[in-house]
Parts: sequence; structure tokens; C-alpha cells
Amino acid sequence: MLDEQELTRIDRWWRAANYLSVGQIYLMGNPLLREPLVAEHVKPRLLGHWGTTPGLNFIYAHMNRAIVARDLDALFITGPGHGGPGLVAASYLEGTYTETYPSIGQDLDGLTKLFTQFSFPGGIPSHVAPETPGSIHEGGELGYALSHAYGAAFDNPDLVVCAVVGDGEAETGPLATSWHGTKFVDPRRDGAVLPVLHLNGFKIANPTVLARIGDEELAALMRGYGHQPYVVAGSDPAEMHHAFAEALDAALDEIRDIQAEARSASGPVARRPWPMIVLRSPKGWTGPKEVDGKPIEGYWRSHQVPFADARGDDSHRAVLGTWLRSYRPEELFDESGAPYDDIRDLHPAGAKRMSASPHANGGTILQDLELPDFRAYAVDVVPGTGAVESTRVLGGWLRDVMRANMTNFRMFSPDENSSNRLQDVMEVTDRAWNARIVADGFWADDHLAPEGRIMEILSEHTCEGWLEGYLLTGRHGLFSCYEAFIHIIDSMFNQHAKWLKTTRHIDWRAPIASLNILLTSHVWRQDHNGFSHQDPGFIDHVVNKKADVVRVYLPPDANTLLSVADHCLRSRNYVNVIVAGKQPALQYLSMDDAVVHATKGIGIWDWASSDEGAAPDVVMACAGDIPTQETLAAVSILREQVPSLRIRVVNVVDLMRLQPETEHPHGLSDHDFDALFTTDTPVIFAYHGYPWLIHRLTYRRTNHANFHVRGYKEEGTTTTPFDMCVLNQLDRFDLALDVLERVPGLASRTGHVHEMLKNKLIEHRAYVRRHGEDMPEVRSWTWSPVDGPQVRTDSPENDAPEG
Amino acid sequence: MLDEQELTRIDRWWRAANYLSVGQIYLMGNPLLREPLVAEHVKPRLLGHWGTTPGLNFIYAHMNRAIVARDLDALFITGPGHGGPGLVAASYLEGTYTETYPSIGQDLDGLTKLFTQFSFPGGIPSHVAPETPGSIHEGGELGYALSHAYGAAFDNPDLVVCAVVGDGEAETGPLATSWHGTKFVDPRRDGAVLPVLHLNGFKIANPTVLARIGDEELAALMRGYGHQPYVVAGSDPAEMHHAFAEALDAALDEIRDIQAEARSASGPVARRPWPMIVLRSPKGWTGPKEVDGKPIEGYWRSHQVPFADARGDDSHRAVLGTWLRSYRPEELFDESGAPYDDIRDLHPAGAKRMSASPHANGGTILQDLELPDFRAYAVDVVPGTGAVESTRVLGGWLRDVMRANMTNFRMFSPDENSSNRLQDVMEVTDRAWNARIVADGFWADDHLAPEGRIMEILSEHTCEGWLEGYLLTGRHGLFSCYEAFIHIIDSMFNQHAKWLKTTRHIDWRAPIASLNILLTSHVWRQDHNGFSHQDPGFIDHVVNKKADVVRVYLPPDANTLLSVADHCLRSRNYVNVIVAGKQPALQYLSMDDAVVHATKGIGIWDWASSDEGAAPDVVMACAGDIPTQETLAAVSILREQVPSLRIRVVNVVDLMRLQPETEHPHGLSDHDFDALFTTDTPVIFAYHGYPWLIHRLTYRRTNHANFHVRGYKEEGTTTTPFDMCVLNQLDRFDLALDVLERVPGLASRTGHVHEMLKNKLIEHRAYVRRHGEDMPEVRSWTWSPVDGPQVRTDSPENDAPEG
Repeated sequence: MLDEQELTRIDRWWRAANYLSVGQIYLMGNPLLREPLVAEHVKPRLLGHWGTTPGLNFIYAHMNRAIVARDLDALFITGPGHGGPGLVAASYLEGTYTETYPSIGQDLDGLTKLFTQFSFPGGIPSHVAPETPGSIHEGGELGYALSHAYGAAFDNPDLVVCAVVGDGEAETGPLATSWHGTKFVDPRRDGAVLPVLHLNGFKIANPTVLARIGDEELAALMRGYGHQPYVVAGSDPAEMHHAFAEALDAALDEIRDIQAEARSASGPVARRPWPMIVLRSPKGWTGPKEVDGKPIEGYWRSHQVPFADARGDDSHRAVLGTWLRSYRPEELFDESGAPYDDIRDLHPAGAKRMSASPHANGGTILQDLELPDFRAYAVDVVPGTGAVESTRVLGGWLRDVMRANMTNFRMFSPDENSSNRLQDVMEVTDRAWNARIVADGFWADDHLAPEGRIMEILSEHTCEGWLEGYLLTGRHGLFSCYEAFIHIIDSMFNQHAKWLKTTRHIDWRAPIASLNILLTSHVWRQDHNGFSHQDPGFIDHVVNKKADVVRVYLPPDANTLLSVADHCLRSRNYVNVIVAGKQPALQYLSMDDAVVHATKGIGIWDWASSDEGAAPDVVMACAGDIPTQETLAAVSILREQVPSLRIRVVNVVDLMRLQPETEHPHGLSDHDFDALFTTDTPVIFAYHGYPWLIHRLTYRRTNHANFHVRGYKEEGTTTTPFDMCVLNQLDRFDLALDVLERVPGLASRTGHVHEMLKNKLIEHRAYVRRHGEDMPEVRSWTWSPVDGPQVRTDSPENDAPEG
Repeated sequence: MLDEQELTRIDRWWRAANYLSVGQIYLMGNPLLREPLVAEHVKPRLLGHWGTTPGLNFIYAHMNRAIVARDLDALFITGPGHGGPGLVAASYLEGTYTETYPSIGQDLDGLTKLFTQFSFPGGIPSHVAPETPGSIHEGGELGYALSHAYGAAFDNPDLVVCAVVGDGEAETGPLATSWHGTKFVDPRRDGAVLPVLHLNGFKIANPTVLARIGDEELAALMRGYGHQPYVVAGSDPAEMHHAFAEALDAALDEIRDIQAEARSASGPVARRPWPMIVLRSPKGWTGPKEVDGKPIEGYWRSHQVPFADARGDDSHRAVLGTWLRSYRPEELFDESGAPYDDIRDLHPAGAKRMSASPHANGGTILQDLELPDFRAYAVDVVPGTGAVESTRVLGGWLRDVMRANMTNFRMFSPDENSSNRLQDVMEVTDRAWNARIVADGFWADDHLAPEGRIMEILSEHTCEGWLEGYLLTGRHGLFSCYEAFIHIIDSMFNQHAKWLKTTRHIDWRAPIASLNILLTSHVWRQDHNGFSHQDPGFIDHVVNKKADVVRVYLPPDANTLLSVADHCLRSRNYVNVIVAGKQPALQYLSMDDAVVHATKGIGIWDWASSDEGAAPDVVMACAGDIPTQETLAAVSILREQVPSLRIRVVNVVDLMRLQPETEHPHGLSDHDFDALFTTDTPVIFAYHGYPWLIHRLTYRRTNHANFHVRGYKEEGTTTTPFDMCVLNQLDRFDLALDVLERVPGLASRTGHVHEMLKNKLIEHRAYVRRHGEDMPEVRSWTWSPVDGPQVRTDSPENDAPEG
């Protein structure tokens, strides 16, 4: 039981937060109702969500009591981010809002501004936005509260992340699986997540599933997720305050016990259920019971603005006045408009305030990674030869990145870390696993441990959410994923890119580490899994977002990949997408050349070109490892068959170089672009993804009409690697044919070459259907030998699992 | 207990299926090992997934016994679709494969072809693909087995859908929430879903979460999902056969009881837990225990091909031979190579075979919808006036579509059906709901019933999965969704589009109803929810897929929407994306005009143009309701301010008309395109989405260099509707400015208009920041009055919930 003073203080804080929330939604004047409420005090357009807000305020108030009582380090994740007014109100009461935005003071003028700015042009958004102090989670798109919370808790042993999960959000897939974070959090090294499942019973227009399945089934579900549920249900404020405080104390005690046991034990301890709280309270709690004869409190009608005509309709405005006065603002705010001291006493001071947590402004506590010199991991290269798994080379470097950053770097993957050839990192850490482990014997598990730093769960959503939470709280990471299935998190990418775009204009938010996404097992080498695994469209999705936020890299080989990866891990506030193959592939650039090429992002490969500085007859451009291989093979054929042809080879690593400089900060000037691609020469462009993206990026360029782009045109099945190229006409023979057909005057004098190439395609088709593998001349093709150092030939052990 | 004969028959069938599965993965000759196994019998590239396959075969065999014993109508959903060889083997044993592909006979020659074709160029894919008889589910991308299964079960009261869920898939978000289908299936009217959670313990390289949380926690989870679990665990085949048969019988008995109780009751009955089975068996069950000293059976190494060098390495090939012979093929296949009769006797005959189920080839049982004449729902229109909620008008028609098709049409939405203004359909049906319902009193629930046909759960994944399952089994539906959050199912759309593309080339698959996606609450009217809710990029995503599968419609008003929707509900084998607003908006076309316009998909609006048939000075093109409104407003300003200017207004409904006819079947010929857009006149194009899409679609057109496109450029927040346009320069003033700047010679003589327009933008900015709503002249703007019939002015009741 709370003592009388605690109860009063909590309730007063809650009333104040609720009052400020309703005020933000409705008022643009007369903030403390010291005058009669008239139409002009009410906003003309009412935008915001009341329904979830009083519950959020209730939980926040109780967390504040517990933080002070226990000297907790806590963070608040607002799953129902629609309840923006509540979190703004909390940070205003805590003083953080005024510290952050000095024009919004704790006085009558500040209150007027606070109310008016909400959901108002030139003001602040209606959700828990980047603008909201204390937030790392917008909450507009539902599903990610718990994965963000776990991401925040990892490697923050003293942190308690209170994650409010709305019962609407709880119906989403990403949320439904993110409860399994219980099997990945380490009570020794990580902080704790305390989920509060807020059953307010309704979504926009429907009841919620979890509010209607009964207590027993719900408790079973939570136990099944690895939780011990504490249920608090009701609507009487005083009773609810006592009950919730008791549940919260029990939950926090249990967290302390679990952590203490694990931290004092000499060896592993059995996983215990983590506490969670079910809060069952009315939607729109403390709001009007009914308006116009229709139920509001405890019903879906309180979801957004419970009644919309408070400006024009006197009776609605009277309801509003009664509602606002029910919080007794005169008891909460003093003459000047500031909250009375005893209200402010509820919450902690300084950085202990959840609205002022440095974890919620992760850039302020971000430490640079210690990065080993990637040049030391270089592969020796004879251009156009070798058989190196690029991502495996990267994995060697990442192992040492991990070794040097064992508290602020993690790798994330949906069960593909080893399949993507990043398994070397297991030399220095394990996969995180806090469920049962088979420790010994023939079937012993492979590199699993509670303290592992490789995060693998077969949920792209959870991987992405964990990483976002980890980055937003000031750490670093890498997400590796099959290319096709990264579309699963398209919408999460959208939200993160929007968050980053917005923070660019918020001075007090310090830059965070970039979101680095490595796409391997890409479209051209999903010959074994077939059509469902072939989709290079994530790049198209990414480039729809603001140019100053997104970067796309297509390193053609291992050394370039190392250079690009180093650059990405150093960068801030971007989403970096890197596409790189995991299969043994040709190498092209020495490390020195790779660094120059990756830095420029685009360039002429003189060693492969035959234009010798003169005006070329054709530009053969390529972006991506397989397109580069096929382009060079086509060049090789053409140089042999049509020796007089002047071919220029241009390779693109940084896709954004293609855009005009007015559209993207990486964009080439027209002058530089024309220097590479000419103003009048045919360009045969072999591109990793859907070909029209290249047109989209280059349509403003002088020579665009001469661009002929090959790429993935949605043809594929289970077949051979080279056949994947042939099906999409990205193969060497088709590229060479494109050249014959596009260079003016060439077709008429190269009929025999044309016929030879067509025959090669027929020969290929017959060969693969007979033998089930590619023709030897294709499989073993390398660029014409050049004197020089030999390519590293130590063949990788092939014990890596395939997907 | 199975009797001896049953046990033998099941085990023999299982061995045969396993043998055929291993044969498909490894062999291209010597199918029954009647000669010594040599290198040439083994495929050079081994592609396929063994790990999950024996478990699938086991469940399939047991289902067959039950189907015969109970005369069941059953469908098999293979969550682990990677186990393609298993399902191909099953349909081969059942004879369906030979009926479907007569060249693959039940003889030695047929076996050789069956084995060789698997994962072979020119053959069949490695997964449970559209080519696989009996499948509606590719299973390459994990997460949708249960939602597809429920979609299949809806309105099929006699069907039992056995849905195998892999423990890898079970970790995905979409799967984790799809268990809640238990609260949406109606035991009276719908069939049953029997989930079999197959715990084979491992994914690609890691153990699975659900296999490592212990029986008690797992059982709690299943009970929490609304299930009664039956657990079958072990590895000894005979013991497992008895145990699984017993569990399956119990589960099927329980399904029968639940349905019988519900179907004989006079009123609603309480929801009971549905049975489900947990099958815990070794990964790669019956495969080699170890190879090269490493564990295979019961370990992640059996995930794909357990050992890869069976062609080149004699010892590996010896392991393969021993493994294959362990199934004793000589006891299973007769001299001719056909399975012995007693094996064939296990499964049912004809359409009762799961591989021959008509539900798995839904087009064969698809009934046309009975569609009321949409013309009867027309809105009276004075062009450019009115305030009609287009989707609400559509809702009136959909109500009557529903009324006329109460067994084969459903609507799906993530809690947005009413918010999207489709609530009129609740006059004829309810929302499906089989959890607790508050039947009476002030807080009584609103249109919830077990037999409801409006499917609402706050999971875009589940809505999409249900609808896909429903369509694939031969029914019709509509998915309505907020535009921004349809990205949540980007990857599901990919898979469905790929499925449709593939079936275009499979003669025996009859066309199914199109997947119809209605996007309302679109980017321009998410002013209230802010930046996180603003994303029109789904269209970009969709148009990456094969042109003969995707269609995108942007009807500008209610009558056009009606015509488009009618067209889409009649269509087959497409994905139709319709973007239409739900807010009160101007109307433009009478029903007759709308039908013509929607049918042509693009056209000149003479009534709004001022070129009077002559060559225009500028083409003002628009696609989407808000861009159309702003374009007409700009035209209105320009006609007043620059009366001599000849403006042509072109409106685009069918976005694919813009593409060249060589790229899309709906594409205009260059001749027709040039007739609309000219070859040399500036085009100011106001587009609903990201502007570069229009460039991508039109870059090959003669006049492309003159195209200037405005659209959403990722600017937004919580603000006013018109301010959303201004932030992205899609507003009337900016569009008019674009005209002044682009028409040659115009700028120099219209300086005063330029200044006026710039001032309007300044005025707007000041006004919204002061008043929080748009300027009256913008809010109340309509096209210049024209004599004629008045627009329908009965204002809609605004009791619809907002999102």
C-alpha cells in the first residue's frame, strides 16, 4: 500500500499530466480556465489521440515514484506513440521540456504555447516524435515497442526499460514475436525490459483480442512468452494507484532478484520468467462518460478526439470545460501557471528523469568504434581472377571489430550470420542465447551463450527493431540479411529513415551511428532457393527516402567491400545499404585501388578498358559483383572478337553518384558525369537490381537517351547461377550482343560475332538442361592473365550452413 | 494404437516418400539403385532442403490415413515450403503428379525424370511452388502458413486445413500473431485449421526458440493462443506412428465435437480451445547420423543437403547409397518402378487426395461475384464541386456486393474498415469476432459476431494472409488499408505477385480472383497523424513486379472509383492497387463520363481545358484525387490571370497507361501518348506519389524532357491538408508558378501573377500558423460554377472513427 502522501502525490501528478494532455488536444488559449471557456480558446482543428493517453500518464507517474524510491536508471518506451500529448506533458512537468525548448516556460505564457503548438502548423506533431524529449520511438506505426526496448537494454546493465505495449499493437506480428526477447537478454550483462501490456480494450473501432480472451488465457500466453504476469485491473483511481504500485514494486523486486542471482553466480543460471504487468483500465480513462448519448470513456469512441465540435457547439464546449475542471487545475498549478512543488517532487532530478535520459538521446553518449585497419585484411588480387567469398573476408575484419568493441557493437541476423559467411566473428563471441543450451556431447550446440553478441532470431522485424533500439541509445551495429527478405522490414526502414530525417533539424539530438544493412545472398545467387528468394527491390524502396539520409553501395569485390564497410561503420545518421555477394567470386582491385575506387564511388577501370583515353565507341558500365563479372566477360569477348572497338569500362560502387548533385549530396556534377559516360556514346549498363532504377537516377543526364540498362527483370527459378543471368539478359553474351546492336555501324560488320554469341546462348541452354550445371567455360572464366602477384588461393573451409 | 496393417502401411508410405525425396535431391539416374551407384548418377549441383522433409512426409502420411478413415475433406499447407521434395513425392505417390504431368509416369523412366527435374534447369523449383499439385503456399518466405490456412478454411465448413508450422517460421512476427485466428474462425460456418507445430529443433544454423523453452512454457503459449496442444515427441518410427496417430485422432475428434456443438446449438456457444499438435522429431529424421565426424540427423547440418560431394567423393557417395537403401526401395517399388499397391492404398482417391484438392486450385471452383450495377450508386456531379467521401460512396456499393455474395466475398482491414468509410457494409454483416462480446447495455459492442464477414485484426500481415488464402482457394475479397502501412506487407505482395506470375505459365492452374488492395487515408490526408503516416511508395514497390500481374488505379472521384472497383472485382490473376481518399472531396465526372474515363484510363478533360482543341501552351496532368484538385485550382487561377494561355488538362486513372505499350499491356502507344502530351509542350504533372515514378514510366516518351513532375518528396508533419501540399510544392500556387516558369516567354509578361502567387504562399504560411486551419479561400474552393444538376449535398453522418 502507498502511504497517503505517496498516493496524493502520484494522483496529483497524474491529474496534472492528464490536464495538460487534454489542454494540448483542445485549447489554444485560457490554459488554466481562469476565464469562461469560449469558442476562441478552442482550436479550430482538433487533432490528437486521447484514448491511450491517461493510461500512459498513469504508468509514467508510477515509474517516477519507483525511480526516486529505488534510484533507478529508467527509460520509457511508448508503444502507443499516438499518445503524444501524454509524453509531452510528462516532460513538461519534469522541466525537461522547458530546458529543451526555453520558449515554453513553466508559466501561463508557456502553457498557452505548449497547448497551442500541439498538432498545429509550425508546432509539434501529434505523436511521440523525435521532437519529444525522452523518446526513441515514434510509435505511429505499431509493432516495435518491445524490440526497441530490448535493443535499448542490451549492454546497459543498470537500465530498466519500461515498455508500454498497447493492446492494439499487441495484435501486430512484429510485436507478437518480440516477446521472445526474454530468451536473448542476459541478466548479467544487459539491463531489463519491463513490459506493461496496457489493455484499454479498444482500437480505432474494435475491441482488442487480448482484452477479450479472459485472464486465464492471457496469463498462459504471457507465461508462454517467458513472463510472470502481474495483473492490475479497474477504474477507481485510488484503488488502481495502490494496486499498480504494488505490482510495480513486485516486478522491480523480481528484476533485481533475477539480475542479482545471475550476477553473483559463478556459472550460468537457469532462465527465470521475467516479470511483466497487465494494466486493464478504461480507454479514455477520466474522460467524459458519454457525449451526445454515446459512450466515450471505456469505448472506442475515445480513441482520438472524443468530441470534435468543441469550438462551434456550446454544449460540446461545456462538456470540455467540465472535463478539464474535473482535474481541478487550480490545485495543480500556482498563480504563475507553474506546477506546485509537490507535483514536481514526484519525479527524479537531472538525468534520472526519463524525459532527460541520455539513453534517449543516444548520440550524446555514443563512443566511436575502435576500428582495426581494414587494409590489413586485404586480399591479394590479380584483376579479374580469384575465387574469394567477399563477405567472408569482411567477416575477418568484423571479428576484430567485435573483439575491440565488446560492449557497444553487435551483429544482427535472422539465422543467417554464418550462411552469410560472417562466421569468423564466432572466434571472439557467441550467439546470444538464454534458452536451453546443449553444452556437451556429439550434438553440443555451436557457439551459443547468454553473453553472446551475435543476435540471431528468425525474425527480420526483431533483428531490425533490436538494432534500431541499440543505435538510438548510442551504440553501433550491423544487420546482415538475405536480399529478398529485407523487404520484410520495408516499413520499419521507412520509420527509421523518417526519424533520422526529422532529427537533422533538431539541434539537441546528437547524431547516432548509422543503420548499416548488409545484403548478401542476393538475387543473382539465389539460384538454389528459386524465384521466391529473388528480389533486389529494397534499393528502389530506400532511394525514395530523403537523399541526405540514405546511401547505397555495391562493392564489386572483397577489398572494395572492406573499404565501404569501414566507411559505413564510421558514419553517422545514415541508412547505409551494402549489397555484396557471399559466393566465391572474381576479385578486381588491390587494396590501394579499392580505397580510391570506394572513395570516389565511381570510376573508369582503365585496366579493363580499350579506349586508351580516347573517345570510346561504347561505355560498358556495371554496378554489383555479378554485373561486373558479366560486363568484364563481355568486354573480354568483344576485345577478342572486335579488337578495333574502343570500350570504356565504368564501375559504380556508390549508386547515389549517378544522381544529379542537386538531388543527392553524393551526386556527380553533370560535367563529371559526362566525362565518364560521354554525351553521345552508347552506354550498356549492367545493374544489380531492377533496371529502371538506373533510368530514374540518370534521366536528367545529357547522354541518358543512349543508356541501355540490363538488370533483374523478375525472371528466375531454381537453376544455375549463369542461367539466372541469361534469364534476365544480364549475361556476357547478351551484353556483348547489346554492344553490337547499339554501336552505330557495328552490327553490319560483325554478323559472325552476332551469330557466335547467339549460338553460345543456345549452347548454354542445351548444356545446363543436360548437365544441370553451367558450361565449364563460364564456370572457370577469368580475365586475361596479367603478370603480378597471385590471388590468395587458400580455399575457405566450406562448413558454413546454407540457407 | 494403430493396428499392424495400418502401421505397416503408414510406415511404408513414409519410407517411400522419404526415398523419393532423397532421390530428388541427389539422383539423376539409377533411381531404384538397381545398379551400383556411380558418380554419373549423382547431380553435379545438389540443391534442396532435406531437414524438414521427413517430418512433412510423416504428417502427410498420417493425414492420409485419417482422411480415408474419416472421409475428410482436407488441405495441406506446408509452412516449411523449402521441403519441396516431400510434397512432390506425396503427389507422385498419390498419382496426381502423373495425372498433372503425364511425362512423369509411375515407372522407372518416370522416376528418373522425377528425380532429375528437381532443382534442375528447365525442371521444377526446389520449393513447394505453384508447379506443385496441392499447394497454395510456396513457403520460401516464412511467416504465412497459418494465415493462409485460415483464409482457406473460411466459408469452407467441411474442410480441415492441416497447417504445418516449422519452428523456424514460428519465430517470425506474422506467424506469431496468426495463431490468433482462433478468435476469428466460426465453428458453424467455417472449416477448421489444425496447426502442427513441427519442432525439428534447428533453423539454418541455430536451434529454434520454441524447441528450447521446455514443454511447460510451450504448452502455456499454445493455450494462450487459444489452443489445446497435443505433444508427440521422439524418434523411433513405430512409437512415433502410434503416438501421432493417436494425437491426430484426438485432435480431429475434438474439431468434430467443437463444430457439432456449434452447429447444433440454437444460439452462440462459448469459444473452446481448438486442438493443435506439437511434433518434436529430429531434423533430417532417418538421414545419416553423421558424416565426416559431424552430426547430421538431429542437427542443423541436415538443413539443406547434408553432404555435398556425393558425386566426386566416393565415401560421400557410399553414405548416400547406404542412406537410400535404408528405406529398402525394393520393398516399396515393383519391377516396373511403380509403388506397390498397398502403398497407394494409404491415400484417398480422386479429389479427396490433398494433392488433388480443388481448393488448392481455387480457380477451378471460383464463382463469379454477383455485382449490383455500380451505376446505380452514382453521385450527381457538377464538375469541380461537391464534398463527397469517395470511399463512403464505394461502401454503399460494397454493402450490396456483400449482400449478394454472402458465402464467397469478404472484406479485410487492420481495424480501419469504418475509418476508411466502408462502414455501410455493416448493414448486412458484422465484423467477425469469436472472442468475448459485450452483447447488451450502454457499452454494447458494435457489430461483432462470429459469423461476421468483415475481417479486422490490427495486423496487416494477417489481413493480407487471410485474403491470399481466401483467394487462392477460389473466393473473392478486398483489403482496405492506410496507404503508409501497406508497406508492412511489401514482401507478402512480392510473394503473391511471383506466385501469380508463375501460374501464368501453368496451364492446369485456373485463374483466381485478383488481389484487390484499396489504399485510403493516403499521404495527402494524413495531416493529422503526421510524418510517420505519410508514404505513397507502395505504388513504386508494386510496379517492380511483372507488368502482366500488376495494375495501379488512382480514381480522382467517387464515380470513377465505383467504375474502377467494379472492374477490379471482375478481374482475375492481378494485383490491383486502388488509391482513393476518404475525406470529403470535390467530384468531377458524371457516371457516364467516369465509366468512359476509367475504361480509357487516361484522358483530356475538355471541360477544364482552355486549349479548345488547338495546340496547348502547357499540359497540366494529374493523377490522384488531391493532385487533381490542386491542378484544377491552378488551372482556374491561370485561366483568370492569364486568359490567353491555352491549357490542356490530362487526368490519369490507370497509371500503367503511361508506360510504353512494349512494357505493359495497358501502355499507350507512342502515337496515343504524344496525342495527349504533345511532343514539345511543357507538361506540369501533379502526381499522388513520389514524383520520380512518373519519370521512370515515361522516360522513353518523345516529350519526356519537358515533363516536370510534382509529388510527395518526403516532407510532412502534423499540419493542415493544404499545408501538406505546400510543403511538397504540389499546391495550386506552386503548380501555377511552375507553368509560368516553364512555358517559354510566359515569365517575362506575367511578373505580377508570379508575385501574387508567391504572396499567396506567404499568406498561407502566416494564416495556418495563426489559425491552425487552412485559409477559407482554399478550404471552400470549387471550380467555376456551371449550370446543371446540383451535387448531392446530404452530408454524411460523421460518426465514423478516425485512425
